[in-house]
Amino acid sequence: MSDPAPSPDDYPHSLIIPTRWKDNDVYGHVNNVEYYSYFDTVINRFLIESGGLDIHGGATIGVCAESHCRFLAAVAFPDPIDARLRVGKLGNASVRYEIGLFGGDGAALAEGWFVHVFVDRETRRPAGIPDPIRAALESLEVAS
Amino acid sequence: MSDPAPSPDDYPHSLIIPTRWKDNDVYGHVNNVEYYSYFDTVINRFLIESGGLDIHGGATIGVCAESHCRFLAAVAFPDPIDARLRVGKLGNASVRYEIGLFGGDGAALAEGWFVHVFVDRETRRPAGIPDPIRAALESLEVAS
Amino acid sequence: MSDPAPSPDDYPHSLIIPTRWKDNDVYGHVNNVEYYSYFDTVINRFLIESGGLDIHGGATIGVCAESHCRFLAAVAFPDPIDARLRVGKLGNASVRYEIGLFGGDGAALAEGWFVHVFVDRETRRPAGIPDPIRAALESLEVAS
Amino acid sequence: MSDPAPSPDDYPHSLIIPTRWKDNDVYGHVNNVEYYSYFDTVINRFLIESGGLDIHGGATIGVCAESHCRFLAAVAFPDPIDARLRVGKLGNASVRYEIGLFGGDGAALAEGWFVHVFVDRETRRPAGIPDPIRAALESLEVAS
Repeated sequence: MSDPAPSPDDYPHSLIIPTRWKDNDVYGHVNNVEYYSYFDTVINRFLIESGGLDIHGGATIGVCAESHCRFLAAVAFPDPIDARLRVGKLGNASVRYEIGLFGGDGAALAEGWFVHVFVDRETRRPAGIPDPIRAALESLEVAS
Repeated sequence: MSDPAPSPDDYPHSLIIPTRWKDNDVYGHVNNVEYYSYFDTVINRFLIESGGLDIHGGATIGVCAESHCRFLAAVAFPDPIDARLRVGKLGNASVRYEIGLFGGDGAALAEGWFVHVFVDRETRRPAGIPDPIRAALESLEVAS
Repeated sequence: MSDPAPSPDDYPHSLIIPTRWKDNDVYGHVNNVEYYSYFDTVINRFLIESGGLDIHGGATIGVCAESHCRFLAAVAFPDPIDARLRVGKLGNASVRYEIGLFGGDGAALAEGWFVHVFVDRETRRPAGIPDPIRAALESLEVAS
Repeated sequence: MSDPAPSPDDYPHSLIIPTRWKDNDVYGHVNNVEYYSYFDTVINRFLIESGGLDIHGGATIGVCAESHCRFLAAVAFPDPIDARLRVGKLGNASVRYEIGLFGGDGAALAEGWFVHVFVDRETRRPAGIPDPIRAALESLEVAS
């Protein structure tokens, strides 16, 4: 709780994700589970659009090995989310993404991370990250 | 199946809803259930933004009495949805919305309808449609 | 609204579906969209367990062509749903399921229907219903 | 990855959560996001049934401050999940749950943790954990 809140400027990539009616839970705000859905969406859309990931037939796919979220503020439908993305660690077959979620006014809603292991679609064994995906991921690396 | 496909021009209101990773199901396309989530989202966002619906504390809320969807074509993440809305029948305490979902190229993905009954938040008994909401709904009525 | 409420006895197949935290929406009850998820679940689990549907690799799959739900009463997490299923019309390549959702006390929550068209997984063109699936579906036909 | 896999015996509370059609994603297995929905469900159902949490009108509610999941094995609809729960740390206004998800054969699917802060429903400021909830949580504390 004592860690400083993230800033949108900490992340080179941004995707605006509108909330949906169903995102709100019985307490009136977006359910914690949906935050991970925003993580999944900003990551995979980046991989598809910038790295050429073929989710339907590509030989190599990314599967989630570990994820984490620290919730900083509530948000509710119909407010949009600014989902920001950077790459924290890029390995041979895996990548650690770091994600910040922000409200329309730039207020930090959450920060988290997510580890993808790239595996062969059929065997589900670790595979090297395909070159076009690696190049896209390198563009999101941030000097620490 | 023999009904003609709807056109975006048949509906006066439009909301672009980006798809999410999780919308795709095991067969590779957006699951049929999510289409109803798009219905819910275009309707409630319109009610909030144009009719002043207060989903957190308002005395009158809209609950779904009946819904229907005819699926016309598949769509998949990350393609966006153009959700179109009109009002088919506006009663004393209920409204029938008609929705068309379209792809980026204007191709019809689905058409459906959805009946909201406006009820008292506490008693859940039918209540009149609040004036600001009624005015907003009237703006979406289409001569048949 | 004037149609009589369905009875659990109207349906030969039953599946208990526990609700989840996330099913409740901001108004405190299960969101209308989730009812269609219960439809999908009772239908596909029946097809897999009784008809041998192979959702991962089978040559023929069922895709939804049309669905409908009439909402009769509210339900909330953590109450379970008794999802009941019968077959209304069994054609060459399509089937119309009729579903009733009931609460723990047998109270009718919703009734709906759902049309599956069986298609070739690759071409997505209509295919005959595989024999083991047809036999399973025939066991749920109800004389009208 | 080198941590030992958890065992069902490590957790005093169990809830069987059937999977749903929609849980599977385009890669054929339950999406990582749904694992957090299972966390939410086993936790809140325990709080409601054993601790008397009133999600509709209670003065004190639990909101998620942080969560984490390490994914160990894939699972797919229609297989059920055995969601196991223990309390790792019980503070004045917050609790850290530890969750293990297991397959039908006892194989570890995931392990994670989830921090609830109990807050006043209206002000959303931290409140003490209500006595009945505290008693229930104490019953899930495990000596480390």
